[in-house]
Amino acid sequence: MNVPTDRYVSEATFYVRYAETDTMGIVHHSAYLVYCEELRSQYARDMGTNYAEFEKEGLALAVSEVHMRYLVPVVYGQRVTVRGWVVEAKSRRITFGYQIVDPDNGTVHATGTTSHICVTRAGQVARIPEHWMELWDAGSSSKEEI
Amino acid sequence: MNVPTDRYVSEATFYVRYAETDTMGIVHHSAYLVYCEELRSQYARDMGTNYAEFEKEGLALAVSEVHMRYLVPVVYGQRVTVRGWVVEAKSRRITFGYQIVDPDNGTVHATGTTSHICVTRAGQVARIPEHWMELWDAGSSSKEEI
Amino acid sequence: MNVPTDRYVSEATFYVRYAETDTMGIVHHSAYLVYCEELRSQYARDMGTNYAEFEKEGLALAVSEVHMRYLVPVVYGQRVTVRGWVVEAKSRRITFGYQIVDPDNGTVHATGTTSHICVTRAGQVARIPEHWMELWDAGSSSKEEI
Amino acid sequence: MNVPTDRYVSEATFYVRYAETDTMGIVHHSAYLVYCEELRSQYARDMGTNYAEFEKEGLALAVSEVHMRYLVPVVYGQRVTVRGWVVEAKSRRITFGYQIVDPDNGTVHATGTTSHICVTRAGQVARIPEHWMELWDAGSSSKEEI
Repeated sequence: MNVPTDRYVSEATFYVRYAETDTMGIVHHSAYLVYCEELRSQYARDMGTNYAEFEKEGLALAVSEVHMRYLVPVVYGQRVTVRGWVVEAKSRRITFGYQIVDPDNGTVHATGTTSHICVTRAGQVARIPEHWMELWDAGSSSKEEI
Repeated sequence: MNVPTDRYVSEATFYVRYAETDTMGIVHHSAYLVYCEELRSQYARDMGTNYAEFEKEGLALAVSEVHMRYLVPVVYGQRVTVRGWVVEAKSRRITFGYQIVDPDNGTVHATGTTSHICVTRAGQVARIPEHWMELWDAGSSSKEEI
Repeated sequence: MNVPTDRYVSEATFYVRYAETDTMGIVHHSAYLVYCEELRSQYARDMGTNYAEFEKEGLALAVSEVHMRYLVPVVYGQRVTVRGWVVEAKSRRITFGYQIVDPDNGTVHATGTTSHICVTRAGQVARIPEHWMELWDAGSSSKEEI
Repeated sequence: MNVPTDRYVSEATFYVRYAETDTMGIVHHSAYLVYCEELRSQYARDMGTNYAEFEKEGLALAVSEVHMRYLVPVVYGQRVTVRGWVVEAKSRRITFGYQIVDPDNGTVHATGTTSHICVTRAGQVARIPEHWMELWDAGSSSKEEI
């Protein structure tokens, strides 16, 4: 999966944490989901807001699907850059794409996608409010309904 | 710290999880706090209830202090037994003690204590309801007020 | 994805841990990967061994791909049963399938697959030793080479 | 515990991650240990090196004791600043002190200490090499032997 050139791509760079590694001496595969989540937080901040504001409106983006490919292990001592973008923004569902790379030499460590359904606190599927859709929709060409 | 003989001691035994290990090849020190938390969950289940019920009453036991001593590392492939008991139960605060051992050979891997303050959802300190205090108080000799 | 009837299916049942939940009040999606990993540990134990033995042979099963669908959230206080089986066992790669259900009412919470490449400590791809392949191959119908 | 003025104090500021929160809607107490660990990583980087280098010398700093006080909960959407310093540096053991604060308003969320024993890969206690001791000793007044 390549990073798209036709829409906004958010980026976050940080050192991996020792606690994220395992006995194999590499970052545990579950930590990549946390990195992708942190990228979504960064995306919202890039747009001048905070995902905490979304939840204050009584909504949440529940993860409905995750697909991750692990290409080259990441080790402690290393920094990673997570890049993320909106693959598809529908009225009730949004899909993000990711690339996790070494910011120093460009090695691609992993790629993936996550899909999210907008739900109320009671767990009911809901439309993503217009002012949020505008953020995630920025640069995305897919606006069809589900 | 020895396991007390004058009060109820709850026990939970499980295999450590690969994700809990780190590059040193041992269980990460933060995982022990999760083990102790799981023991508190087990304690409530031993008493015929579930800590989820406590939260349904609009209350929570917020962790106010943690003290843990790590004696012998735990490695993947191993089971641990967590033993836990009430050190002190006051009207608004409860302290648990723990011992984490190898169930097969008795090796003591760690000991510790955690203290908890009863709070409402709004974060206000609150009295622990009587019917919960009775559970945690069982066998404890310290019932003075704070 | 349905649980297959033509091969061995391992099962592990446990209470979800409080630390695995998030602000939405549900188990975080990354925890499911840890549940699946624990199922793989259980699978090895079911076969009379321990994945730790695999690593003692200087090998590891590095996660190369993860695909997870989240259907119904899991909340604290609940038990889950993870079922797992070998989807495909090749000479250097093995794929597991999973179903995560509520053992009390059968609700399917999530389904998924994980793929693993056999690697040496130096990170080189290696053949899975015959005596291990026999375990994972048990009941699987796919034995072609990659 | 106050931040000392007579020795080096390292600092790391970051947003808390959604995965670190729990059903109470606050950052889980075990995450603070990971924050402190990340501060120790930052401390080594401040000194122009990386803790990964320490491990390349066949050594590790195993956590032997943790003491943490939780004063004010941290919520998602918030940044924290972790400050850390060397409380005591002995030939085989080092103790760090921490303060976790809100960088925007100065609220002290938590304070704590962690102690570490220098061990070889085989788990034997070892002297901290001189060139590492110099880093951690910088500004510390306690240099007595254990």
